[in-house]
Amino acid sequence: MMKWIGGTIVARWLNHHWIQSVHRCRLFYSTSGCAQNTLRTTLYNRKNILIFNFRRFRCSTMSTNKESPLDQLTSAVLEQDERVRHMRLQNCHHEDLNSEEERLKELHRKLNQLLKETGAASVDDSEMQKNFPREALEGLLKRRFFIAPSFEIYGGVAGLYDYGPPGTAVKNNIIQIWRQHFVVEENMMELEGSCLTPDIVLRASGHVDKFSDMLVKDVETGDCFRADHLLKEQLNKLLQDSNLSAEEKELAETTLTTIDEMDLNEMTKQLKQWNVCSPETGNRLSDPYPFNLMFQTSIGPTGLLPGFLRPETAQGIFVNFRRLLDYQGDKLPFACAQIGTAFRNEIAPRSGLLRVREFTQAEIEHFVHPEKKQHPKIEKVSQVRVRLFPRRNQLSTRQAVDMTIQQALEEHIIDNETLGYFIARTQLFALKVGLDQQKIRFRQHLQHEMAHYAKDCWDLEVESSYGWIECAGLADRACYDLQNHSEKSHVDLTAFEVFPEKKQMDVWVAEFNKGLLGKTFRHEAALIIKGIEALSDAEKQTLQRSIESQGSVSVTVQDKQYDLTKDMISFKKVTKSVSGQSYYPSVIEPSFGIGRLLYCVWEHNFYIRSGEDEQRAVLSLPAIVAPYKCTILPLSKNVIFQTLITQVGEKLTRLGIQHKVDESGVSIGKRYARADELGIPLAITIDFDSLQDGSVTLRERDSTKQVRGSVDEIIQEVNLLSDGKAQWNDVVQRHPIFNTSST
Amino acid sequence: MMKWIGGTIVARWLNHHWIQSVHRCRLFYSTSGCAQNTLRTTLYNRKNILIFNFRRFRCSTMSTNKESPLDQLTSAVLEQDERVRHMRLQNCHHEDLNSEEERLKELHRKLNQLLKETGAASVDDSEMQKNFPREALEGLLKRRFFIAPSFEIYGGVAGLYDYGPPGTAVKNNIIQIWRQHFVVEENMMELEGSCLTPDIVLRASGHVDKFSDMLVKDVETGDCFRADHLLKEQLNKLLQDSNLSAEEKELAETTLTTIDEMDLNEMTKQLKQWNVCSPETGNRLSDPYPFNLMFQTSIGPTGLLPGFLRPETAQGIFVNFRRLLDYQGDKLPFACAQIGTAFRNEIAPRSGLLRVREFTQAEIEHFVHPEKKQHPKIEKVSQVRVRLFPRRNQLSTRQAVDMTIQQALEEHIIDNETLGYFIARTQLFALKVGLDQQKIRFRQHLQHEMAHYAKDCWDLEVESSYGWIECAGLADRACYDLQNHSEKSHVDLTAFEVFPEKKQMDVWVAEFNKGLLGKTFRHEAALIIKGIEALSDAEKQTLQRSIESQGSVSVTVQDKQYDLTKDMISFKKVTKSVSGQSYYPSVIEPSFGIGRLLYCVWEHNFYIRSGEDEQRAVLSLPAIVAPYKCTILPLSKNVIFQTLITQVGEKLTRLGIQHKVDESGVSIGKRYARADELGIPLAITIDFDSLQDGSVTLRERDSTKQVRGSVDEIIQEVNLLSDGKAQWNDVVQRHPIFNTSST
Repeated sequence: MMKWIGGTIVARWLNHHWIQSVHRCRLFYSTSGCAQNTLRTTLYNRKNILIFNFRRFRCSTMSTNKESPLDQLTSAVLEQDERVRHMRLQNCHHEDLNSEEERLKELHRKLNQLLKETGAASVDDSEMQKNFPREALEGLLKRRFFIAPSFEIYGGVAGLYDYGPPGTAVKNNIIQIWRQHFVVEENMMELEGSCLTPDIVLRASGHVDKFSDMLVKDVETGDCFRADHLLKEQLNKLLQDSNLSAEEKELAETTLTTIDEMDLNEMTKQLKQWNVCSPETGNRLSDPYPFNLMFQTSIGPTGLLPGFLRPETAQGIFVNFRRLLDYQGDKLPFACAQIGTAFRNEIAPRSGLLRVREFTQAEIEHFVHPEKKQHPKIEKVSQVRVRLFPRRNQLSTRQAVDMTIQQALEEHIIDNETLGYFIARTQLFALKVGLDQQKIRFRQHLQHEMAHYAKDCWDLEVESSYGWIECAGLADRACYDLQNHSEKSHVDLTAFEVFPEKKQMDVWVAEFNKGLLGKTFRHEAALIIKGIEALSDAEKQTLQRSIESQGSVSVTVQDKQYDLTKDMISFKKVTKSVSGQSYYPSVIEPSFGIGRLLYCVWEHNFYIRSGEDEQRAVLSLPAIVAPYKCTILPLSKNVIFQTLITQVGEKLTRLGIQHKVDESGVSIGKRYARADELGIPLAITIDFDSLQDGSVTLRERDSTKQVRGSVDEIIQEVNLLSDGKAQWNDVVQRHPIFNTSST
Repeated sequence: MMKWIGGTIVARWLNHHWIQSVHRCRLFYSTSGCAQNTLRTTLYNRKNILIFNFRRFRCSTMSTNKESPLDQLTSAVLEQDERVRHMRLQNCHHEDLNSEEERLKELHRKLNQLLKETGAASVDDSEMQKNFPREALEGLLKRRFFIAPSFEIYGGVAGLYDYGPPGTAVKNNIIQIWRQHFVVEENMMELEGSCLTPDIVLRASGHVDKFSDMLVKDVETGDCFRADHLLKEQLNKLLQDSNLSAEEKELAETTLTTIDEMDLNEMTKQLKQWNVCSPETGNRLSDPYPFNLMFQTSIGPTGLLPGFLRPETAQGIFVNFRRLLDYQGDKLPFACAQIGTAFRNEIAPRSGLLRVREFTQAEIEHFVHPEKKQHPKIEKVSQVRVRLFPRRNQLSTRQAVDMTIQQALEEHIIDNETLGYFIARTQLFALKVGLDQQKIRFRQHLQHEMAHYAKDCWDLEVESSYGWIECAGLADRACYDLQNHSEKSHVDLTAFEVFPEKKQMDVWVAEFNKGLLGKTFRHEAALIIKGIEALSDAEKQTLQRSIESQGSVSVTVQDKQYDLTKDMISFKKVTKSVSGQSYYPSVIEPSFGIGRLLYCVWEHNFYIRSGEDEQRAVLSLPAIVAPYKCTILPLSKNVIFQTLITQVGEKLTRLGIQHKVDESGVSIGKRYARADELGIPLAITIDFDSLQDGSVTLRERDSTKQVRGSVDEIIQEVNLLSDGKAQWNDVVQRHPIFNTSST
């Protein structure tokens, strides 16, 4: 919880050599490391980017004696991590940064050592990673054309996959469930923006400058690799080596911990130090360099308008903020969702469906007043139990904890109600589509992991054979995007807060010598006056300070700089009665990777059943997710079954039930097995008795049990089961189990 | 109707100087110009591309005396058009082509003259084009955020639009209806391919070489234009000029008719001849040059894999044909659909939503045996009446004709049952989403309009304020795509036809001197043998002829050429008993532009209602298409309504009914007007009486009539109306009309 306490002590920091662009400062108390209730003082600049934080005093109700050495060290790492991150964001002097980074490494080393000594460091390896029959699943997915490499007949393209008929059906079902769960039930807006995005938009968002990975090239073959992946592999390989000295081992372990934090210089140094070579050829590698992950193209025939394929759908919502606010009747909070394709030119895509170059995102941007992040429906989810893995636990106990949303909010583990609400809703969605509750958790981002704009971030992580996979991210992006787009486009993207009653407020106003300005700047004078009047109070205050100390100020209006002397302009503070104020809303963003979720749903619902003669794979998908709810199986290819097949099919279609007729000549047993692989929960079998008495059998996938009834009775059951309005147990109550030798 | 009559007379044509790549020829009788029943003989090469056709004899039952001069001239134009088109496709000698083109122009001139004399030439202008209040609609669409220019705050990008909340909802509804109407009801497969497509795929499809428009540049400003657009504008401008001589006028009119047929040389000539300048500046223009309409990018970090954004979704289905056939149990016919984004880098997008650079396509590829294009469900649509505008009518009467599908098939106006079936289903879909039956027609492509691969093509054209707009195309792509991808990828993309019983067939077999081949080509010998064995009968026959005449042949195996002498290889014909044969399926492709359809739905359902005080716009969308089925309007902003608003909202959500609460402080009348603009068919109003007795009013958009009932009664009616299970008239029967002064 943050609390605004004013800007008075800010001035002290302004001369600090690495604070270069502070215009308007805020000072907050911020609780950090909730479990410890340590109070920290943090300092933010106008973009809500933290520029410094320090442990200033301790809450009088707390005793430091209770903190174990592990707790203390963890706190120290967390704080140092934060300090280094923000020094980087502020482009601090290299020397200063270096010494702080060294300190961070030293703290990590100590923490690792302590963890080893106390035995607390349990390795975060998962059962699934060791035992899951991934090859069997992947074989099934390709054999049944859930997915296939795109352009496979031309050898495929790394990181591109096509969804075949059952894959497309399952994906569409998941998207529809997502839309119902979030857009419809939460009364959100939804929009659809363009994939093609001009350069200027992605410059404003920071993607042109910062959306890159470090790349190294094999100097002989030209093959490209991610520098961090190669360094990680090299270190892990070394750690397997029993000849490694204890000292080297410790160094390797500490280095592993800090890979994600390395900047270009550090990475260059480390690649050399650990002698990392090209993995297949053993050739020398180039120095690492940043490779932007966006696909570039050119819009229009002139070649003068560079553009990219969007790397996330979010920006399409931010640039439409003005219209959305208007559509919503100027009322905040509101949320807008978008489901669409995003593109990332991954350097070396591996991990199958988990790291691809083209993927479907489902994103929500929930706009709120930065100081009003309560959620009106929080009561509805407060008792939902979630598994949380907060930052502190990741460093110390390395164990996630189960708790209710209410508890997590009370203990300040989750920062605010809106974030808490969406974490709960995200879990409910995950369970609805078939993820296993025992295999999901919400992990808080470590400081150095967070996107440059994020204030706080929790990932929905799903356990899979590839380890814990990020399938959704829930980030507090603060006002970063709206403010940047507003500044770059010169379009006001603020909301207006009407005070319940008028307030007396100190405001800074500018006084101009219009004659002198006109003489000096001619037709530009009006523009300058307008630009200066639009500045914030803090900016005006800073300018006045500059006028007082230096006799002049430099102001930038519409990207042009003007030097103004003290006889042209001055500022003074006046007390005014105001009815409200403009502000940049904060954005809470739940963002889902549909392809990753889908893959994890497949893994969580895959099992091998020992049949009479062979092992058979089953995709035990929930009915609402399954590609077809039902398959129709005539006993043989005999044409006499045709009329009944058509009748049953048409009745299912009329009820909107997706189904598939399997008339291939193989045995019923083989066709059941095929349906099991496709994840089809139900099968209607038509045999010779059906032609006599109009009865058919219904077989359930997981129990492999069957019942028999008239066509209409059975279709009625299929309808109830597909909608989740009945369970198989109910069906068995109504119709006796039917035994047949044909399976 | 085509009928295979053998390949014996083919040899006579082989030496014709412009037939360069005939491997395997087929000779068909083809009925053309169905109304006339003129029999033509046509000659196709192995790619099923027509290489020559001529009127060979007339059916004995027909009398030529019945043909009017207009009929005769129309037939002559149609035939000449076909001849020129295929000479171009075959890259004929320039001189030959020129003289045929001159002949075509002369025929067009004569036809135009005749039409003028007989008064048959009614101009194809539409009522909507003159009278539709397009500005009012476009104002509404932007004001209510159905759409907005993408990246509007940065000035927008031509040809890119975002769909706001109501636009997205309507678009999603149309897509869901399309999916239900085609994919579910026809039991099609659906897949989802990648947008990013490597160069090699789009080379095989012909897009890299041929998917371009002719571009001219203003030599001073660098502004780019479509050459054909400028020429057309210039000619139309000239035709307005009363000083134009009769001769010039006729020339301009004839040129207008042939713009779409012009190649680069002709276009260069015409632009000069008519003195076409840059439209805004009057500057000189560059010569036209082809500009490829695909967005280019580079896949992966090496820069070595050029790629494009797909210009159509169709290719993603063709490259997966093998897997789809397998999924379908090797049974033809089958259809696969895809709904997705496609991209075209239009030179100068105009016409609002109708010509955009990024758009949603919904495409179906229906694979059939080339000689079995019957459709099993044709009976279900045979009595559907459609408005057809066949090629012949476009040239002569210029009038579309209404007829049933059955009639159109019997008269051979529509080529085959599958095409006819989809034309009927397309019309049913168009009416379902709200297009006006009086404003749609199916227009057959003229020869020169057809894509290079198409055998026949009908467009669903919709009348709009921009004229008649192509919203869907139904094309017979023959086997062009599968064959090309098969050849370029070296992967077999044929289907196999099993004969009902074995047939005695003449087949050509190769006899090899394996010793000599091995000595000459070493390890490549096996590859050569395999390659030659895979050749078709016609190819083997051609090779044998070459061996006989020249003593050697040159064969290409996996892109490498080998010279073989007659002592290495020979071919002979043997009679074999075969059980079936491979063939490339033909493809019938119904392809929909969702954005265009959507825009036309808006135009067809837009009207202005004279209110008491002002003109009010109404979007009279069918309930299944409307963005919200219902709006909830409390009488005022008073908080006492809140509980009931929430209750009603939750009940609607539970029934899956999209709705919108409008709590803004304006009058009920203004909020009704807003709902009318959003196309919301129903409004539930909550007033003070509601708080007393739990009753609410329900207002219908088009009649503006209201009824009153309990919350549950009214919600029940909303549910029935939204699903199309009740009409407003039914509701009025059950609840009396309610008169109120609040509107």
